[in-house]
Amino acid sequence: MRTITIKPKALTHNLYQVKKLAPSAKVLAMVKSNAYGHGVAAVLPALQQADGIGVATLAEALEARQLGWHKTIGLIEGAFTADEWQTAIAQDISCVIHHEPQLMWALDNIPPASSATRVVWLKYNTGMNRLGFDAKGVIDAAAQLHAAGYQLILTTHFANADDSSHPLNALQIQRFNDMLQILKETVSQEVKGSLCNSAGIVNFAEHHHDWVRPGIILYGSSPVVDQSAATLDLQPAMEFCAQIIALQTVSANDAIGYGSLWSAPHDTKTALVSIGYGDGYPRVISTDAYVTVINAADQQRYRCAVLGRVAMDMIVIDASAMPADTALNSKVILWGEAPHVDEVASHAGTISYELLCRLSTRPARIAAH
Amino acid sequence: MRTITIKPKALTHNLYQVKKLAPSAKVLAMVKSNAYGHGVAAVLPALQQADGIGVATLAEALEARQLGWHKTIGLIEGAFTADEWQTAIAQDISCVIHHEPQLMWALDNIPPASSATRVVWLKYNTGMNRLGFDAKGVIDAAAQLHAAGYQLILTTHFANADDSSHPLNALQIQRFNDMLQILKETVSQEVKGSLCNSAGIVNFAEHHHDWVRPGIILYGSSPVVDQSAATLDLQPAMEFCAQIIALQTVSANDAIGYGSLWSAPHDTKTALVSIGYGDGYPRVISTDAYVTVINAADQQRYRCAVLGRVAMDMIVIDASAMPADTALNSKVILWGEAPHVDEVASHAGTISYELLCRLSTRPARIAAH
Repeated sequence: MRTITIKPKALTHNLYQVKKLAPSAKVLAMVKSNAYGHGVAAVLPALQQADGIGVATLAEALEARQLGWHKTIGLIEGAFTADEWQTAIAQDISCVIHHEPQLMWALDNIPPASSATRVVWLKYNTGMNRLGFDAKGVIDAAAQLHAAGYQLILTTHFANADDSSHPLNALQIQRFNDMLQILKETVSQEVKGSLCNSAGIVNFAEHHHDWVRPGIILYGSSPVVDQSAATLDLQPAMEFCAQIIALQTVSANDAIGYGSLWSAPHDTKTALVSIGYGDGYPRVISTDAYVTVINAADQQRYRCAVLGRVAMDMIVIDASAMPADTALNSKVILWGEAPHVDEVASHAGTISYELLCRLSTRPARIAAH
Repeated sequence: MRTITIKPKALTHNLYQVKKLAPSAKVLAMVKSNAYGHGVAAVLPALQQADGIGVATLAEALEARQLGWHKTIGLIEGAFTADEWQTAIAQDISCVIHHEPQLMWALDNIPPASSATRVVWLKYNTGMNRLGFDAKGVIDAAAQLHAAGYQLILTTHFANADDSSHPLNALQIQRFNDMLQILKETVSQEVKGSLCNSAGIVNFAEHHHDWVRPGIILYGSSPVVDQSAATLDLQPAMEFCAQIIALQTVSANDAIGYGSLWSAPHDTKTALVSIGYGDGYPRVISTDAYVTVINAADQQRYRCAVLGRVAMDMIVIDASAMPADTALNSKVILWGEAPHVDEVASHAGTISYELLCRLSTRPARIAAH
């Protein structure tokens, strides 16, 4: 068995942490990319206290509506076509407007006054240099949208909010705050603001504005480079597990796995674990990588290093520290409490977001209680 | 739209290439890990000329049976429990036996003479040092299984077959061939042999024995380090695409995306593409990485470099070489004909196998004709 267990209580706890950090802001809980790999259906019930959810594609928005999410849905890259804009109206989806074509679709097809699509998230490029209008563009767009009856939320995206010392942060914050002030004065006092993703929520408490947009923090990973998930009192919402499928002894000097990357310094007891990159465990990982085995024979936990190359369907771990009665089919935790997915990500030279999103369909998905 | 298009004709062509390389061997087509991310349901119709298929888990075997695959299914890590062994018998699945517990289950529960489970793949550890019996163990197991009425296929797995010059190859081949000879002489002349995966099929033509087990080669990637997929006349079975969702100009010295990794040397036209690691495109990729854009306005193909950090839902590409009339929603090829997935993998510091397996559920899956 390969299993991915989702923990609703952890999600709810992490959402509560966000609300403690940003008590006066509304919360748009990011559930794009299948809720960061956790599964939208599995997380929505635990996120009922969020004011809205954020998704990246219209298909994700429609899935959430179908699952019964009746509150705000923010489509954070907006409609890709005029047809998508029409569908957004039909499904009461609030869209980002980040460039001229989307502005035209919105002005050409104004939703009914009662529609949630009347709320648009107007994207200002403050330094990420991906999506968004420049200063002049955003002022023009805001004026036109307001005149057409839209309610506006000015939004932007940080490039380096994970690193509070990065000089671009102050510049992005200043540009955003200045523009929000301009729009309030020249367009409407009712223009709202949304600046902070997870890292911004943690690092820039004085700039939370009307809506915060937590993503990774909801799933229990740290969004910042200088504080761990534990320090932030976050709980991992996923446990990714497999099992021991064989026990072996590798003779001294014999190498293990593809590329013969790891050679046994002496006769070494190893265990084979039914997990691999075909499940989403990263193929390239440092020699510091480890898993936790819960030995079915004694219910004790053992920390075991990953040895050699991760294969598609299998890894080999060092079972030296395990007792003679180590049981076949013992549970192996790839990530969860320990190792935390942030730790595995650092061993894989990436961030937890990627590991979570790139899980395959092979592991069975289980909801914890 | 994010799309994954599977090309049955390419799969069938690649299977034909395998048959040309190994004309006298039967073919166990590896479809584990959801057919290397291609989708089992999508590939089985194109692999009808294979003699059998190989899977890594019982769940994968049952899925293939449910999809109507009536020929051999080889479960390459065998049953994980005695119950799984019973299910294998009920579903006519041929199992690997690689360690003592599996041997016991097989001797305790002998399938009917007509059952395909009477054929067992007996795994010999010749140097991979993961699964398999040692020399004495394999001889003992073979004798017991033969006496119990099983038909045997001796099998092993290469650790370095992708690199024909690696010294372990000759040792593994010799150990395997010697053992097959011993089993034929001491157990039964009817013992069969299966040594070669994709790389072995290409590199060790004189050692194909009775069954070859092609995997990655069927999907159109090269299994060896010194020959490209084109040299081997393989066709990529997958095209992974997205679209341009915005066009921007980034000012000189401005940086793009998370971590501000890429700064524009001069004013630079960029395009935003609706793909990211949330779809399975690798997050960490070299500055050599590129995509192919088919401009909807002129139907011409343009090679565009990936700029800055790959995000969850989006990448930025260099659109300098594209004409003024570059159309929104133009198709962007992440991998397919060009770049080939092998090339993308090398830019990501891994192998195509991993990129293919770690695709997420977000891209829409399409069958080509």
